[in-house]
Amino acid sequence: MHSRTHNVWDRTIEPVAEVESGAELTVDTTEASGGQLTDASTAADVPGLDFGRVNPVTGPFLVPGAQPGDALLVDVLEMSVGGWGWTACIPGFGLLADDFTDPHLRISTITERGAELLPGLVIPVVPMVGTIGVAPPEPGPHSMVPPRRWGGNMDIRHIGPGARLILPVGVPGALLSLGDAHAAMGDGEVAGTGVETDGSVRLRITLLPGAAPATPIVETDPRTQRTGRALATTGIGPDLMTAARDATRALVDEVVRRSGLAPADAYLLASVAADLKISELVDVPNWVVTAHLELSLLDAAGR
Amino acid sequence: MHSRTHNVWDRTIEPVAEVESGAELTVDTTEASGGQLTDASTAADVPGLDFGRVNPVTGPFLVPGAQPGDALLVDVLEMSVGGWGWTACIPGFGLLADDFTDPHLRISTITERGAELLPGLVIPVVPMVGTIGVAPPEPGPHSMVPPRRWGGNMDIRHIGPGARLILPVGVPGALLSLGDAHAAMGDGEVAGTGVETDGSVRLRITLLPGAAPATPIVETDPRTQRTGRALATTGIGPDLMTAARDATRALVDEVVRRSGLAPADAYLLASVAADLKISELVDVPNWVVTAHLELSLLDAAGR
Repeated sequence: MHSRTHNVWDRTIEPVAEVESGAELTVDTTEASGGQLTDASTAADVPGLDFGRVNPVTGPFLVPGAQPGDALLVDVLEMSVGGWGWTACIPGFGLLADDFTDPHLRISTITERGAELLPGLVIPVVPMVGTIGVAPPEPGPHSMVPPRRWGGNMDIRHIGPGARLILPVGVPGALLSLGDAHAAMGDGEVAGTGVETDGSVRLRITLLPGAAPATPIVETDPRTQRTGRALATTGIGPDLMTAARDATRALVDEVVRRSGLAPADAYLLASVAADLKISELVDVPNWVVTAHLELSLLDAAGR
Repeated sequence: MHSRTHNVWDRTIEPVAEVESGAELTVDTTEASGGQLTDASTAADVPGLDFGRVNPVTGPFLVPGAQPGDALLVDVLEMSVGGWGWTACIPGFGLLADDFTDPHLRISTITERGAELLPGLVIPVVPMVGTIGVAPPEPGPHSMVPPRRWGGNMDIRHIGPGARLILPVGVPGALLSLGDAHAAMGDGEVAGTGVETDGSVRLRITLLPGAAPATPIVETDPRTQRTGRALATTGIGPDLMTAARDATRALVDEVVRRSGLAPADAYLLASVAADLKISELVDVPNWVVTAHLELSLLDAAGR
């Protein structure tokens, strides 16, 4: 069990432990504020968040023999999340930062039933690892915020129990680190936060010599699929980012209209539970992005 | 049963029939080449496709009393597709047009088992309506290719049996038309074509006065969800279109590597069965797009 964290990617950070190819390890991760928020925090605590301390990752783990050009397979065998989580609108951050300029914070209690984002609105827990990657070969410290070819803050919601992640190795020993557990997140993570929580992740590491993919590859587990009837709003136009923003705005509007939720809460609901899909990007000159939210959540929100 | 088609959107096209709010209708649709391709066509027939004749839609249907500002609800009650379909790389068209410059065509036989894209590679049929919309209020003819606020060639693969589509009404009488049936398509429709086929669609139309959404909204049916273990490749970077292209290229490469399919066939497989998702678009400055393909199809392709 390992829990020492770091706050930048850097190939010179001393490994916390060695993990042989084929071995299992259990990693404890810290929620994405790195202790800056607690279950007693309020929206007033959000503007003071120090982005230099966000997304701490646990590690790095050195894989003996790993060399640049190898592939590192990471099988997520099991994962548990903390008893509470936070979801926020952080001013200046998120897809609709221009619309939601005020800080907003919701603390979810997480139980067997799910994550209770708002009273009575329980989001099914689909645990995932938001940030997982290996040290970039480029020297110097690199911010934790953007993902890269070497992984990092990819926020791929399908990296959870049962998934296999295939990373390219960039430096000798690979230097794997992970953190930023989410109890729930939607494809897109539109507000920039999922249900941010502590985690404990059991992994198996396997080295495949010379098999580095160009970019990370995931094999997803069926448990991360959504299977309910959903509301899907659209954004249509010649720019995917604008179309994504339009689809998300339309979803927020429709959730507010149907359920009576406050707009900022509807935005957080979208961030933790709605999935952005690219419906088409070939019918020139207009592309379609759709934002999908299971209707059962809308029913719960409207109660 | 109605089958008269038109090849542009234009508010002056004479209605083929009137449909009262609350009524059902059955619409026969023609495959997207408008008869230019048949089940005996080859790749040599693809470059000659006249884009002025593609995506014919059946209609328009006039809804008495419909006024601009109203919402038109379209419930897809039932849908059948033809006995064959076509999927093509059309030079200059599609997400990877720069990579796939040669015409390529696959004719699928469609049976109860699915659409056989290649010998032994059977794609489950998830019938959908690629093009459905109402007449734009702007005068003059408008191309069938791009979707608009009024719907059209949205290629939302969730518009199939059990789905409800909510369209804004743009002109008196709404003037609904539809076509471009697909036996299967992936979110993104990366090569620009699904399994293009004839269709027969039973619909119910309902008018909601004054309830026009800003852009089309869909309520999706669980049958359009994918529930199997999937391979997901990534594109990571500051531009969503480039990330989508990278994720799709990586999927084609990985499918080729694992199954031995020809690259152009892997591209068509992605177009009819792989889903593009936006994993995150908030972790500045790099976004992540993932391309998901169910592994069962890869297994079938590799046999």
